[in-house]
This record gives sequence, C-alpha cells and structure tokens, in this order.
Amino acid sequence: MATLPLLDDDTASAEARAVFDDIRAKRQTDHVNNFWRALAHDPAQLQQVWDRLQQVMAPGALDPLVKELIYVAVSVANGCDYCIHSHTAAAKAKGMTSAMHAELLAVIAMASQTNALTTALQVPTDERFKS
Amino acid sequence: MATLPLLDDDTASAEARAVFDDIRAKRQTDHVNNFWRALAHDPAQLQQVWDRLQQVMAPGALDPLVKELIYVAVSVANGCDYCIHSHTAAAKAKGMTSAMHAELLAVIAMASQTNALTTALQVPTDERFKS
Amino acid sequence: MATLPLLDDDTASAEARAVFDDIRAKRQTDHVNNFWRALAHDPAQLQQVWDRLQQVMAPGALDPLVKELIYVAVSVANGCDYCIHSHTAAAKAKGMTSAMHAELLAVIAMASQTNALTTALQVPTDERFKS
Amino acid sequence: MATLPLLDDDTASAEARAVFDDIRAKRQTDHVNNFWRALAHDPAQLQQVWDRLQQVMAPGALDPLVKELIYVAVSVANGCDYCIHSHTAAAKAKGMTSAMHAELLAVIAMASQTNALTTALQVPTDERFKS
Amino acid sequence: MATLPLLDDDTASAEARAVFDDIRAKRQTDHVNNFWRALAHDPAQLQQVWDRLQQVMAPGALDPLVKELIYVAVSVANGCDYCIHSHTAAAKAKGMTSAMHAELLAVIAMASQTNALTTALQVPTDERFKS
Amino acid sequence: MATLPLLDDDTASAEARAVFDDIRAKRQTDHVNNFWRALAHDPAQLQQVWDRLQQVMAPGALDPLVKELIYVAVSVANGCDYCIHSHTAAAKAKGMTSAMHAELLAVIAMASQTNALTTALQVPTDERFKS
Repeated sequence: MATLPLLDDDTASAEARAVFDDIRAKRQTDHVNNFWRALAHDPAQLQQVWDRLQQVMAPGALDPLVKELIYVAVSVANGCDYCIHSHTAAAKAKGMTSAMHAELLAVIAMASQTNALTTALQVPTDERFKS
Repeated sequence: MATLPLLDDDTASAEARAVFDDIRAKRQTDHVNNFWRALAHDPAQLQQVWDRLQQVMAPGALDPLVKELIYVAVSVANGCDYCIHSHTAAAKAKGMTSAMHAELLAVIAMASQTNALTTALQVPTDERFKS
Repeated sequence: MATLPLLDDDTASAEARAVFDDIRAKRQTDHVNNFWRALAHDPAQLQQVWDRLQQVMAPGALDPLVKELIYVAVSVANGCDYCIHSHTAAAKAKGMTSAMHAELLAVIAMASQTNALTTALQVPTDERFKS
Repeated sequence: MATLPLLDDDTASAEARAVFDDIRAKRQTDHVNNFWRALAHDPAQLQQVWDRLQQVMAPGALDPLVKELIYVAVSVANGCDYCIHSHTAAAKAKGMTSAMHAELLAVIAMASQTNALTTALQVPTDERFKS
Repeated sequence: MATLPLLDDDTASAEARAVFDDIRAKRQTDHVNNFWRALAHDPAQLQQVWDRLQQVMAPGALDPLVKELIYVAVSVANGCDYCIHSHTAAAKAKGMTSAMHAELLAVIAMASQTNALTTALQVPTDERFKS
Repeated sequence: MATLPLLDDDTASAEARAVFDDIRAKRQTDHVNNFWRALAHDPAQLQQVWDRLQQVMAPGALDPLVKELIYVAVSVANGCDYCIHSHTAAAKAKGMTSAMHAELLAVIAMASQTNALTTALQVPTDERFKS
C-alpha cells in the first residue's frame, strides 16, 4: 500500500484533477496511473513532474523507444519495482519487441556485472577517457 | 589505486596476454584498458567477461550505440565512476552526439527523480501493468 | 514473508521478551513491530539495535521529527519498503504535516535528480568545498 | 575529471551565461560551482534544474537547513561524492553546527544499518503502517 | 507479478526445456525455480547464466557455503528481494546454522553502517591500503 | 578530502585519544586509520563503532576471514571506495589468498548480474522459499 491514499477525481483537488484530465487527453486513455494519483497530494509537484516528463520523453535526438529503454535500465538499477513495471509496459507500447527486451536485459546484466568488478578492483580511470 | 596491481604484457600470464592480444586485434588499438589489466589476475574471468561482452554488445535487435547508452545509464545508477568514463567514451566513439548525450542525461535525471518519488510513496503497481 | 519466522511473546527467548517489554513500556503501546519480532532470533543484536536507536533518535541538537525525516530520506534512497512505511508513520506521529511531507518528497526527488546528473557528468569537487 | 569540459563565461552559450549570472546574483558570490559549469552544455537543463532547485529549497513548511540535511542524507545513500561535499558545505553555511553534523551522521548510520537488517530479514509491513 | 510470463515445460522452447532438465538433474529436484522460468524467454541467456552459476559456485578456494553467504550479502545490499529469499534458502540447505545466519546479518549491518559513515565523511584512503 | 579534518593525537579530545590508544593496543600497530580519525569529531560515535566492530568481527560461528569477505562484498555493492580498500587489505592480512580473492570477485559479479536480471524481470518468490 502507498504511504498516502491514492486520489481519484472525487478526492483530488481541482488543480490535480486538471492534470489528470491533461494526462487522459494526451495519452488518449481514461486510466490515470497510480503514480499520478499518489503524487496528487501535492498538485504543484504533480504538475511539475508531468510537464517535465513530457519534455524529456518527447522525440528528439533519441527516439521515444530508446528513451524508454534507458528509463527501464535506470529503474532496474535503482530497484524501483513500480517503475520497472510501468516503463516496461510503456516500452512495449512504443514497439519494444521480445528480441529487444532480451537484449535490454542482457546489457543491464552485463553492465551490473562489470560495474561490480570495476568497483571491487577500484580500477583507476585511463588517461584516454578523460575529456 | 586498484586493489590489485594492473598487469601489462610482461607481468600477465600467457592466458591473459592472449586475451589482451585479442582485445587489441578486435578493437584495432594498441591500448588495453585498465579494466582488463586489473581483471587479468584471474585469466578465466578475464576471458569469460571479454567473450560475453562481445556477444552482448554486438549488433542485434538493438544497435550498438543504443546498447552503450543503456550501459552508461546503468553505470550512473550504480555509481561506477570508471564505467561512466569508459562507456561515455565508447558511446561517443560509436556516434553519440552532444544532443544525444544531453537527452541521455535528461532521461537518467528524470528516471532517478520519479524512481525516488515512487519509492517514497510506495505506489502499488496498477493491475494493467501486470503481464 | 520474512526469511525467519516472526517471534511473539510465546516463541521468543526470555532475553528477547525483556526487550519487547521495554519497547512496550517506552513506547506506551502493546504492539511490538514486526522488525523487532524478526530481529528477536538474535537477542543480543535486538538489544543492541534497540538501545542504539533510542540514543540516536533522542532529542539533541536536532529534534526528533527532523531525525525521522532524515531516516525516511535514507530509507527511500536505500529502497527499504518496510522502513519507508514505518518511519513515515513515525514522522506523522511526531508531527509531520501534509505540507512537510510534500516538501520532504520534493527534496528527495531533487537530490536524487542532481545526484544522478553529477555522477553522470563526473563533476570534480570545487576546491572551496574541501575543508 | 568530468565527462564533459567545464564551461566558463567565455565558453558557455549566452543562455547558459545568463543562468550563471542569475546564480551569482541570487547567491551573492562570484563563484559558479562546477556542477553548473558541467551542466551548461545543455542550457535548457541548466535553467530547469536551477529554477527547480530554488523552488524546492526555499523556506516553506520545512526550513532551509532541514532541507539541506535531508539533501546530504540522500546524497550519502546514493554515494554522490560531489553532492556530499557541496551540500555539507551548504548546510554549514546555513547554520549546521558540529553537534548537528554529528547527529546527522548518527541518524544516517542508524538508518543504513536497520535498512540492511530489514531487507536481509524481508520483514513484512505491519498492518498498522498501511494508510 | 513478473514482467514476462513464467514459462513451464509446455510453454518453453526446446532449448529452454533442455536447461530445465539439466537443472533438475544437477539439483536432484523436480522443481525449477521461478528465476529460471522467467529467464527462459531468452534461452541463450538462460543457458549462459546457468552454466556460469555452476562454475562460480562450485567448490574451490572458498567453500560453497561461504560463497552463498557472500551471495546473500550482495543481494541484500542490492535490495533484490527474490535473491535474498532464494540464496538464504540455499545457504540453509548448504549448512548455514542459526548462529551463522545471525552473524551474517550482524556483519551486513555493521558494513552498511560504516559504509554510510565513511561515505558521509568522504574519508581519503590511507596510503598503506594502496597496493 | 574529508568533509571534516582528520584528527590526530594532538587535535583529538581525550576521549577520542583513548579510543585511538585502544585501537593501537588491540591491533598492535602505531597506525590509526583515517576512518577513525575522521570519526573522532564525535567521540561517543567513535567509541560505539569501535566497540561494536570488535564484537561483530570476532571469531564465532563464522571465522574472521569469512566475515571480512562478507564485509568486502557489502562494501562493493554499496560503492564505498575507502571501505573496499581497507577491508580488502584486512582480508589479505587475515589470510585471503589470490585464489580466494578471485573467487570472491566472481561471486560478487555473479550475484550483481542475477540481482539485476531478477529485478528487471520482477520474478515472484517461489512458495518453497517462504519460511
């Protein structure tokens, strides 16, 4: 259970409900995820995170699917169960195939392994990597 | 400093030197990074990591640059300084532009922020995310 | 489920039960939290943690509510679900208002974000920060 | 060394320099910390982080010193060396005494210890902590 | 729930089923743990992890029980709930007594505590520790 | 550099100096590690950590070398550079051979890898692992 009750359209403030409506319109769905409903206790934070998320995840030099893969990778390394579920679902919705998913997992596993070895060995950075 | 001395061609075992030579040949460089030289105290582990890394990072359903971006993201979340330096350099070598780098950082920052909020709020996973 | 059974007054040793009784007396409640009941398999560790916790969380240069906010922040960053629940509840019991809770979350989110950016950029420490 | 060169007034873009000037004015110092100079490669991100930081760290239901203590605690748990240095310095500048510092460290140590024990024991959350 | 369905003998590919059979034969049990059944979507990764695990956990300079204790310790620090459960069970199966378990927990708690203090204080490494 | 000056026999309080002397006597060395000298700003915390460390690391159901290996493993997963250096040195002093060190690293790498895979897949815990 959340540390705060999840708010719905009846219990959220008018400011929070306006963000819910914007999420529904932009994402073309009636469903507002639990993350937003937990965050709605602080409408200013809700608005700020939703606005920033749209900017950051919009198409740019990287395409939205690549951004979702990176989001999943960070969420795994940070151990955020909810985020792993929601962003894996988002990646699938944006076109992640089974083969891509398998390779994503393989890279995450490889990086986790070499991160640990490098840290355990306290390897000094090569001069050539310094910008 | 490393917790073990970095080995070079003179101090490494014949098995480790063979891996060094394979790294040089495959990467078309004379330089063998400190990571491999620290790992060379255990030639079997060195061989295993080098072999696996080539498989995992090869072109597949995801292209090698995308894989490097994911590698950097995991390394940042795990706080591996050496890995951040080496894989940021590798990503640049594989074509990461300044704009891509900026967007990579923005996604990592966004994910770190929402990971923390979701964890702090202990948001329960939506039924729709469950496969 | 816990990796060890939770002990109650009937199954705990006499030493552990004495700590349970002290917890009940000091906290003026009949309830002994699951954390203590899991820890009770090692009565010496139970006693040591309970004694130390009382010392550390007592009023001092920082007031107990501020200490609970710091405890929650560390627990979020370490991803300890139980600890987030128990210390968020403790902070509310010590006077954390909704507005304080919202600001606590905002600071945790901000720090998580800039921690990630700083690590990704490998920013060298300014001379002026060195004591 | 940083993964990107630190920018100064001569090498930063006009947009980034405007943020530098705002930092100088608001903080009443000539010094612009390395964090901002590394972030300046992406002026939009620089502006966004600086604006958000001011909002989040402003006096509110929690006072600025308490917010800095929370910031330090998160930075320690996330292992961000730069952030620990810069926010410990900021906390001192805002009035953190030696006694407060010692208690901050004691709470961080206590929380880290019980976080690990709780996770190792996989303690289930008490019903009474569920909101 | 897992982000991918758990596969069983009917739904797994022939390659994955062959790994399941090898696990059953080597471990002398009919049960194939959920970890392997989730990993079975990528039979090559399944095979690679299973092969490597057998090599790494085999008796050597360290005995298998000590290796399991180290595995539990890493899993606790990384906050992997499943791994904590499965490797605590494995350690018990390999002979971990209650007294050993209590000491394992005490060392993990102690290390977590001094890791946090050292990081908070940014203690520079003593020259004598440098190899 | 540390966030607080390292104290020596001249700058430490009488209480802290008494702990330094006890460390010297028990460890039969003149050297007091930087960790203790940074911690000495809070003599009560210094005393508490030193006392507890001796209890926890003493021979018991697990031998002191095994305890050091576990300490190193936790320190690697938590990314504490100082602690990795100091406890790797301590493990060598207590008899860790090169072969043991290599196996320690292999187990840490393996656990880090499967921790990440399990978390990414959100594998549900098998009923049989529940005590």
